[in-house]
Amino acid sequence: MKDLTYIDLKECILSDNDGIADQIRELSVKKRFFLWNIMSSPGAGKTTFIIEIISRLKDQFRFGVIEGDVESTVDSLKMQNLGIPTVQLRTGGGCHLDAAMVMKALESLPLDELDIVIVENIGNLVCPAEFDLGADLPSMILSVPEGDDKAIKYPLMFSVCKALIVSKTDSLGIFDFDFEALRINTGKLNDSLQIFPLSAKSGEGMEEFCSWLKQEIESKKYQ
Amino acid sequence: MKDLTYIDLKECILSDNDGIADQIRELSVKKRFFLWNIMSSPGAGKTTFIIEIISRLKDQFRFGVIEGDVESTVDSLKMQNLGIPTVQLRTGGGCHLDAAMVMKALESLPLDELDIVIVENIGNLVCPAEFDLGADLPSMILSVPEGDDKAIKYPLMFSVCKALIVSKTDSLGIFDFDFEALRINTGKLNDSLQIFPLSAKSGEGMEEFCSWLKQEIESKKYQ
Repeated sequence: MKDLTYIDLKECILSDNDGIADQIRELSVKKRFFLWNIMSSPGAGKTTFIIEIISRLKDQFRFGVIEGDVESTVDSLKMQNLGIPTVQLRTGGGCHLDAAMVMKALESLPLDELDIVIVENIGNLVCPAEFDLGADLPSMILSVPEGDDKAIKYPLMFSVCKALIVSKTDSLGIFDFDFEALRINTGKLNDSLQIFPLSAKSGEGMEEFCSWLKQEIESKKYQ
Repeated sequence: MKDLTYIDLKECILSDNDGIADQIRELSVKKRFFLWNIMSSPGAGKTTFIIEIISRLKDQFRFGVIEGDVESTVDSLKMQNLGIPTVQLRTGGGCHLDAAMVMKALESLPLDELDIVIVENIGNLVCPAEFDLGADLPSMILSVPEGDDKAIKYPLMFSVCKALIVSKTDSLGIFDFDFEALRINTGKLNDSLQIFPLSAKSGEGMEEFCSWLKQEIESKKYQ
């Protein structure tokens, strides 16, 4: 009897994904754009944060946006209202974006006219962390109301990101949030993670984040 | 040439799941316990809410808890400290609980000594909604800071639940939250959904919810 053929579907899916992620990295160098992947739980404030970033930096950089959603086009319409080239990826039940979806979206954007492409991922702290999208800046938003213990519960997300934005700091009067505990827990997973407490609503911390982001964008090598 | 055999893995997984969910329903009637599945985004307040419910109702009902987590045993330890029989389900990367996992956990609980088994699902608004766990009360928590538009973006979750707990109402002074918009959006998906605004911290709305829950528990038919 022949040995059983065992196919690890997850490994196949992820290795396919990584190949396309590499193609995205090559494309972003060739077409000279900076790709920024933003992940978070539902309701952590991704859209509000992105709108605030664009309004602060739109005179310095040309933005494009890829909106990932299970359903609806609510956020895409907000981006279009700002005059930003936007592509909606609707997963219809899927809980994450993968590199193939992002490549498809990039093909629909006017890449020659863009400096930064922002990917607003599906609201989910689990699966999006498994899929490399070829981004220069994989990042996450954790909102103060969610609590400081999330790195213990969803470690992969905190491991794969370069920047952790702690949003809604204007609610620190109501919610207990121990930044020291967060730093200790994330430090065990990822000691190069940059942490930025801020509020897109009050503006607190936005300038510091924008300065850091500009350095990241300007340090990208296009050969 | 033979026709290609096409296997819809998702359909297989879900039909297997539904069979086990039916077995759980039979078991809960035979063993006379009420099964309550609680879903939400990360950080919406599931654990705090469950602890508050148990402390209010522990003289009337005997509780058991099944804790679902990607990693960590933080929440299980909290339940054990309350003297509640608890089983930890660690998915190690998996983004939802399925009926087979819950059946396995039920086999480890002293069911003859319990009136209510609470399942604290993985923090995720997408995939947990796809998996029937055989619960008498599938429910979700949406926290005020997450915003009132989540039914548009994650419709399946709002469709499969019987109760929607809107938590952290003590933060309504800081966050805009339009209950009328929420009711309109959820009404389109699920017109029998019961909505309970409350705060486990301030106690607001907890008594109303507990009264309703007691009715639900007492109306279960055990033949």
